[in-house]
Amino acid sequence: MKAPAFPDLQTSPRVLLGPGPSMVPPRVLQAMAQPPIGHLDPEFLKIMGETQSLLRYAFQTDNSLTIPVSGTGSAGMEAALCNFIEPGDSVLVGVNGYFGERLVEMAGRYGARVDRLERPWGEVFPPDEIGEAVRRKAYKLVAVVHAETSTGTLQPNVAEIASAVHRHGALLVLDTVTSLGGSPVKIDEWDVDIAYSGTQKCLSCPPGLAPLTVGPRGRETLRSRKTKVGNWYLDLTLVEQYWGSERTYHHTAPINMNYALREALRLVAEEGLEARWARHRANAELLWAGLENLGFPPFVPLDHRNPTLTTCSIPALDDAAFRRSLLNEYNIEIAGGFGPLKGRIFRIGLMGFSSRRENVILLLAAMKELMPRG
Amino acid sequence: MKAPAFPDLQTSPRVLLGPGPSMVPPRVLQAMAQPPIGHLDPEFLKIMGETQSLLRYAFQTDNSLTIPVSGTGSAGMEAALCNFIEPGDSVLVGVNGYFGERLVEMAGRYGARVDRLERPWGEVFPPDEIGEAVRRKAYKLVAVVHAETSTGTLQPNVAEIASAVHRHGALLVLDTVTSLGGSPVKIDEWDVDIAYSGTQKCLSCPPGLAPLTVGPRGRETLRSRKTKVGNWYLDLTLVEQYWGSERTYHHTAPINMNYALREALRLVAEEGLEARWARHRANAELLWAGLENLGFPPFVPLDHRNPTLTTCSIPALDDAAFRRSLLNEYNIEIAGGFGPLKGRIFRIGLMGFSSRRENVILLLAAMKELMPRG
Repeated sequence: MKAPAFPDLQTSPRVLLGPGPSMVPPRVLQAMAQPPIGHLDPEFLKIMGETQSLLRYAFQTDNSLTIPVSGTGSAGMEAALCNFIEPGDSVLVGVNGYFGERLVEMAGRYGARVDRLERPWGEVFPPDEIGEAVRRKAYKLVAVVHAETSTGTLQPNVAEIASAVHRHGALLVLDTVTSLGGSPVKIDEWDVDIAYSGTQKCLSCPPGLAPLTVGPRGRETLRSRKTKVGNWYLDLTLVEQYWGSERTYHHTAPINMNYALREALRLVAEEGLEARWARHRANAELLWAGLENLGFPPFVPLDHRNPTLTTCSIPALDDAAFRRSLLNEYNIEIAGGFGPLKGRIFRIGLMGFSSRRENVILLLAAMKELMPRG
Repeated sequence: MKAPAFPDLQTSPRVLLGPGPSMVPPRVLQAMAQPPIGHLDPEFLKIMGETQSLLRYAFQTDNSLTIPVSGTGSAGMEAALCNFIEPGDSVLVGVNGYFGERLVEMAGRYGARVDRLERPWGEVFPPDEIGEAVRRKAYKLVAVVHAETSTGTLQPNVAEIASAVHRHGALLVLDTVTSLGGSPVKIDEWDVDIAYSGTQKCLSCPPGLAPLTVGPRGRETLRSRKTKVGNWYLDLTLVEQYWGSERTYHHTAPINMNYALREALRLVAEEGLEARWARHRANAELLWAGLENLGFPPFVPLDHRNPTLTTCSIPALDDAAFRRSLLNEYNIEIAGGFGPLKGRIFRIGLMGFSSRRENVILLLAAMKELMPRG
């Protein structure tokens, strides 16, 4: 068999303003390129401990079980479900976009009886609606998406939802993939039991790890399982022995990805969460005003609009051709809508290192140039 | 909550001669540190296609479904099982070390009725023993470890095993985690149905991806499933739509890890597999002779000894203290044994970029210095 030959890796200098990955700061790329050491080397165990400590800050939690799962955000979602669900358990999922659908699909794979609480794409859940649903029926687990990447919404009132869910004895799982590090996420203050995220959004680390945090109720549920977790790679009863004090080998951690995440989280800590949230908000507001002016009005009402991922309605123009021109002529990546929003919206991320004033005005200027002449 | 502060990433210049991760060539680290682009960017789709083509060369296969799974080697193992097992299926696993045990454990999570074919740690299976087992009972799938990382064996006669397994209508799954890229692996010539590996062994790429290849019988089994795959993240019916011509979004691929893998595989192709296998063999033979001289005789007989991971018996000395001194005084990582071999063997990897003559003589010289004076 002949060995194939391909040239050196060569990519264009993209400005990443889609729903992720976001751009990665040079310090993070440099850290990632350090030579790997062993996954049981005492020096790596120290790096793991520091990364966990930084992750707790990002999640605003004291949960000791706070770790990067060795897969992308979807693996984090699956870990947040499979560890707490046993066959036959009743689960309630808030579905107001694609990632709610995915939660339903995943929970089903682990034998859950899943009820859907639905809202049209672009809306969020009033807390009393979830309160009403958990009063009507006993659930083991309720899953809600904080920032819906498919629609641009940010679910308000998480603390109120958590309180209702706990009043009826269920666990609250929160998807913070697109909010962590860019928009307030307060796991302990809100009393969220299980939350997960991805590294490639507002943390501005390359994709490949999924931050996950599990509070006391979640750990108790894990401890009192009657069946083994239906997924070996994501089984927290095994994974926590590697990330905990035992340091028992489970699988080889992605060493260099963990270097990168530690550095990305150091940047979060140096900036400070409050300042970071304010930066994301300010750049988003600049974008919203500019889009409105250009004739791309925001798709989601202000009171539940996500500042890290903006969706806007599209005037009469060719969606795909417009985005292709942005990419090919200006090196700017944004995304279109999908599912019921296909062809109706753009999705524009200002996340982490991508959330910079110069990126906003560049995008607006490029969009203006590409507008069909009236 | 106060933001934690940690210093710049700083690790010691380790010489990695354990069972993985192996050392990573500078070209791979450089490729990995390129800024990420989007996972649906046409430029990334091209990189994916090139990586698949290079992976096919490494596996010596024409299988179109040849991809890097977005997790470490254990995720590859789980993908190789969960996609082909439905609850109630009969599975036979060859258990002659830790990774055989793990195959049993994982297959059980997906509802398989698992039979174990056992050999003591350090031995391999005569092909007629597997032939006899598949004749006695009908199995859907038989799983065998090619290179057992816990013991240092290399299973011979894989083609003969595959032929017996197929004669009785089963699929053959082969674990090539520690052999791919360092020792002959010939998927098509041997007629193996499903094989997986890790990036951090003989391919000398950081850990984080798991090469996987699936042949026609495996694809047919996947197509004719009656139930959904019990694992969403690793569900090949969805994953293959992203890596195939449809390019349907499933999860965000670990972009930079894929940059690294492409470069690591380019190095494999440039060296050529035959030359690479010969290099691993020559350096292993040098090591074996040196260890014998020092009083650490190889643990596995020559006819099924793995050249990429050597195990040797330990004379009267403190196992853990010896390895700690190698690490702290010489920056050399090797590993001890575990399970029934704990305290009885060292495990020394000469894999990929770590397999160099200078590393062998350095290790032997350091071990000689550390020998207790008689």
